[in-house]
Amino acid sequence: MRLMSQIPQKQNQPPNVRVLGRRGFLVAGTTLLAAGTGTATSQPTQTSLQPPRSPGAPMTKYGRPSDHEADVVRSRIRSKTGTTGSGASGTPLQHLRGTITPSGLHFERHHSGVPMLAPEQHKLVIHGAVKQPLAFDLDKLHRYPMTTRTQFLECSGNSAALLSPKAQDWNCADIHGLVSCSEWTGVPLAYLLDEAGIDPTASWVIAEGADAGRMNRSVPLSKCLDDAIVALYQNGERLRPENGYPMRLFLPGFEGNMSIKWLHRLELTDSPAMSREETSKYTDLRPGGRAKGFTFDMDVKSIITSPSPGLNLQQPGVYQISGLAWSGKGNLSRVEVSADGGKSWIDATFDGAPQPLALNRFNAAWQWNGKPALLMSRATDSAGNTQPTRQVWIKQFGSNAFYHYNAIQAWRVFGDGRVENTYAT
Amino acid sequence: MRLMSQIPQKQNQPPNVRVLGRRGFLVAGTTLLAAGTGTATSQPTQTSLQPPRSPGAPMTKYGRPSDHEADVVRSRIRSKTGTTGSGASGTPLQHLRGTITPSGLHFERHHSGVPMLAPEQHKLVIHGAVKQPLAFDLDKLHRYPMTTRTQFLECSGNSAALLSPKAQDWNCADIHGLVSCSEWTGVPLAYLLDEAGIDPTASWVIAEGADAGRMNRSVPLSKCLDDAIVALYQNGERLRPENGYPMRLFLPGFEGNMSIKWLHRLELTDSPAMSREETSKYTDLRPGGRAKGFTFDMDVKSIITSPSPGLNLQQPGVYQISGLAWSGKGNLSRVEVSADGGKSWIDATFDGAPQPLALNRFNAAWQWNGKPALLMSRATDSAGNTQPTRQVWIKQFGSNAFYHYNAIQAWRVFGDGRVENTYAT
Repeated sequence: MRLMSQIPQKQNQPPNVRVLGRRGFLVAGTTLLAAGTGTATSQPTQTSLQPPRSPGAPMTKYGRPSDHEADVVRSRIRSKTGTTGSGASGTPLQHLRGTITPSGLHFERHHSGVPMLAPEQHKLVIHGAVKQPLAFDLDKLHRYPMTTRTQFLECSGNSAALLSPKAQDWNCADIHGLVSCSEWTGVPLAYLLDEAGIDPTASWVIAEGADAGRMNRSVPLSKCLDDAIVALYQNGERLRPENGYPMRLFLPGFEGNMSIKWLHRLELTDSPAMSREETSKYTDLRPGGRAKGFTFDMDVKSIITSPSPGLNLQQPGVYQISGLAWSGKGNLSRVEVSADGGKSWIDATFDGAPQPLALNRFNAAWQWNGKPALLMSRATDSAGNTQPTRQVWIKQFGSNAFYHYNAIQAWRVFGDGRVENTYAT
Repeated sequence: MRLMSQIPQKQNQPPNVRVLGRRGFLVAGTTLLAAGTGTATSQPTQTSLQPPRSPGAPMTKYGRPSDHEADVVRSRIRSKTGTTGSGASGTPLQHLRGTITPSGLHFERHHSGVPMLAPEQHKLVIHGAVKQPLAFDLDKLHRYPMTTRTQFLECSGNSAALLSPKAQDWNCADIHGLVSCSEWTGVPLAYLLDEAGIDPTASWVIAEGADAGRMNRSVPLSKCLDDAIVALYQNGERLRPENGYPMRLFLPGFEGNMSIKWLHRLELTDSPAMSREETSKYTDLRPGGRAKGFTFDMDVKSIITSPSPGLNLQQPGVYQISGLAWSGKGNLSRVEVSADGGKSWIDATFDGAPQPLALNRFNAAWQWNGKPALLMSRATDSAGNTQPTRQVWIKQFGSNAFYHYNAIQAWRVFGDGRVENTYAT
């Protein structure tokens, strides 16, 4: 292995790093490398490299991924029996790097399919406990100041597959794919509510979508005045249909289905609607017989996306553990990784400062010795919450729990390099 | 107009703002609003809102924009006569918001079209003045630590349309669309060069693409050791074909064509290649008869994307001026906007802290009185560079100049709300 210390390291170099599977700290750079991974080759001649001899394809109006990436698609499309559009599909997290989810791969969770709405006919109406009901079309919304933020959206049922008694032979996207991260741009809802004039009796806002099921949720007025936006753009362009085109509510850090898609109505009230989606669903019966409802913000969580099932190890050596971590309760303060099932941990590094309410990429180098291993990551947020083990989570929330599962994920690595979902702790 | 001051403003509220077209400062929020833009409406009944009655479309493997956005495509596809793939297409900046460019709308500039490369056969070879030539395939590169950064890429010929003697009736994308911004993820080139072992004689790196034209440029070794990456991912997913799939060089802040796409060869040398693309092209003959070559980093620049040609004003009132600013020479320190052709300026605001070497969104409120106006933006970077007027730029760089045009853009607003490209100063 060659040393990195001789060359300038102006960017992203932690001063000291630890490598999972090695003792003690090592000098910057040295150990981050998959040492000697590059294949020695003779000095190539021009002819040993064979680019095409004829010109390639023309420019296009709207590009798409390479045909060679045809298997990088949404995972496990689940449609409720007897319906076409009610169900879910997941982001293929294990095939992505960085933090942004391409809009075409953003997870889906629809309760009545994707309505195709004509933007020029669509309006958002704000009514109920207001001084003056108001209607906003797209042209009008464009007259207001917009804000842009890169933030995650997670279905509160994400990762619930891990509540099944036996560990399923599923991959990262199958289990955890109902979380994505986008750059969202829209009008702060506070501006619109203020213009309508908030009646002193108002403390809730019932948000309703223009899908056939009129999906609706009750949102505390305080959230609407804090950081809620009416999102019009996702990753630079107008919202995709499956993400609420032409407009959606976006509630940073809150469980996904509260960020009502195809938003057409906001009604200010003095109490929540107690709608289907906040009573029968999106609420958990606890061991004591009482239901836990209105569980707004998503919990601290982390997932190792590589290695993970399907991305098997080739031969012993240094690998980069890469994953995503987030919290709906603030920023991340720490992500630790373990290769021995939680007996020992080292701190993973972030690529720059962690961003609040966003997916954050963490990395750690790991020297695999070719023996069975148990990979885990454990995130802690700025509010002091740390991911529990699966056993602790189930003990706390009981066997009827389904939403907001955030226990530590374990991936089992076999001696042949295969990686599998497992229940370790 | 209602006041915003009564309600909590936790996010993105400057304490005092100025509005173009009004005298003096005004209190937070008050003036940012397109006051009274929302249309008064009666309290709506359920039936006055008419969402579809039947379920919508199913989940899809890979999503795409709404059919209603079919006109948001790359602008002005220019193919060199007699070729299919040699030319350019621009990002439709005026239809986008936020800072990320969707990968499908990233600008294109190809010299031999887009080669379709099989990733499992593609290798990057590092050779020349190294201790040991090395070859890296995609699997090997994934064993190295990666870094992720949101940064712009700009063709050095971007905006050169404004050098034509008469102002063209073109829109923002036609003129300035050869700039885009993505989240790029890849392996720091320094790691790979270090592993190959840099010979003391090396001071340049010749980067070559695997397109039919073997597009190549000479890059100072110092840049390669500083912040250059071999990019594998763009906006979370693998590079798109037109952006170099399966791998490209990415040189933050440098003129676009140095970030060699379809990268297959890096040769370390003691001098630049003096290739076509750094002698006959991508260099400017100056008034004194000498050519200015090796103009690496892009200059400070800003563009008002809205209002702009095609996005006409409807009636007098408050509008949000929105635009993008960037510099290849550091971060932005300031963007000013004017509505009177540069006689008076106010500071635009950024949405959070400006990010270095990225596209940054700036905003300013403007009260349009219905009379003709001349909108301009003027950016200053952290190195102290400020955009010049067109006249000053041309006086300085002469009539043979083509690359690195960064003068102030003026949009003329007519009394009927129409917006047009113009030469004001």
